[in-house]
Amino acid sequence: MTLEDLIRRLREFADARDWEQFHTPKNLVMALSGEAGELTSLFQWLTPEESANWRSDPELEANVLDEIADVTLYLVRLADVLGIDLYEAAAAKIERNELRFPRKS
Amino acid sequence: MTLEDLIRRLREFADARDWEQFHTPKNLVMALSGEAGELTSLFQWLTPEESANWRSDPELEANVLDEIADVTLYLVRLADVLGIDLYEAAAAKIERNELRFPRKS
Amino acid sequence: MTLEDLIRRLREFADARDWEQFHTPKNLVMALSGEAGELTSLFQWLTPEESANWRSDPELEANVLDEIADVTLYLVRLADVLGIDLYEAAAAKIERNELRFPRKS
Amino acid sequence: MTLEDLIRRLREFADARDWEQFHTPKNLVMALSGEAGELTSLFQWLTPEESANWRSDPELEANVLDEIADVTLYLVRLADVLGIDLYEAAAAKIERNELRFPRKS
Repeated sequence: MTLEDLIRRLREFADARDWEQFHTPKNLVMALSGEAGELTSLFQWLTPEESANWRSDPELEANVLDEIADVTLYLVRLADVLGIDLYEAAAAKIERNELRFPRKS
Repeated sequence: MTLEDLIRRLREFADARDWEQFHTPKNLVMALSGEAGELTSLFQWLTPEESANWRSDPELEANVLDEIADVTLYLVRLADVLGIDLYEAAAAKIERNELRFPRKS
Repeated sequence: MTLEDLIRRLREFADARDWEQFHTPKNLVMALSGEAGELTSLFQWLTPEESANWRSDPELEANVLDEIADVTLYLVRLADVLGIDLYEAAAAKIERNELRFPRKS
Repeated sequence: MTLEDLIRRLREFADARDWEQFHTPKNLVMALSGEAGELTSLFQWLTPEESANWRSDPELEANVLDEIADVTLYLVRLADVLGIDLYEAAAAKIERNELRFPRKS
């Protein structure tokens, strides 16, 4: 699967349900933020060490996979609706970060 | 650029700054959530219609590109640290959603 | 009920369950953020007008009351653990905002 | 200062700037969520122990006070616009939690 495949599947998904009317940037930003909040809640009481062992609890594992997927779907859909190329935006930001935070040497 | 390139660049970025110690799942989830919050704040006072015209304000445009990139970088880095294949997780979730929300016909 | 009553009840609640160990500022910030995310998800597909009529849907009404309460409980508990007087902090911020955003007229 | 004072000051603040038009529940939920995200970002790289010593860094201290205040202001304003009594909602939720999570004994 590629990013293009994912973008296309999400377009078809929204179109087949007549949901494009709901997919304004404002609404999709809220959906992304809500899913990020649900992901946060899965880790809130864990120590940093426990958070690294998330696969040892099958219920937590399933929930993390589910919420990570939701964040991904809304991010990809939001970027599509905004007309943003996610990889290009990410690469440009890494370059800004390289200047802002010099390497240790 | 591919997802693999992005994963590799983020690994190198963290390694070159000795930041891997900070990149626990718990911390990265917080970083993702914080960036989603900043993205939300950009759209909070806009009408749905204004949110669709985000490119008409150059400052807003730059900020949206910046925050979308930050969300992407932390999501990709988090998935890498968790050992999750983002596309696989996303595809599995779309399939669950196809069953949960039948198409209109 | 006053803020002091609420603070005291939350202390007793945590103490009676031996949960104080989990109530670090970091963890409580995550809990607050997670609940804010759940609150956001309730409004994500509503138009601004529909959001103002939230009481017309009994299920939505119950969920909003529940999530608003959760945000309040975690905010009050977090401020208590941090040793912050919420009203004092809020009043100080209103004064900063009065200077930053002059009145119309 | 009481909750009623805070509610009244926020009403006057919005009215004096003609901002009531922006204060729909949907928009205020986004504002609350955005501020919760900014608060989260302040704690993201701290260990739980460091998060408890937040006052030892004056810049962090000022930022935490500022963001906690912002969350409080938007929560109080949101509840006012929704017609929710925050203390009543919080007390009702504590009672539900008492049943849901029995005390250790």
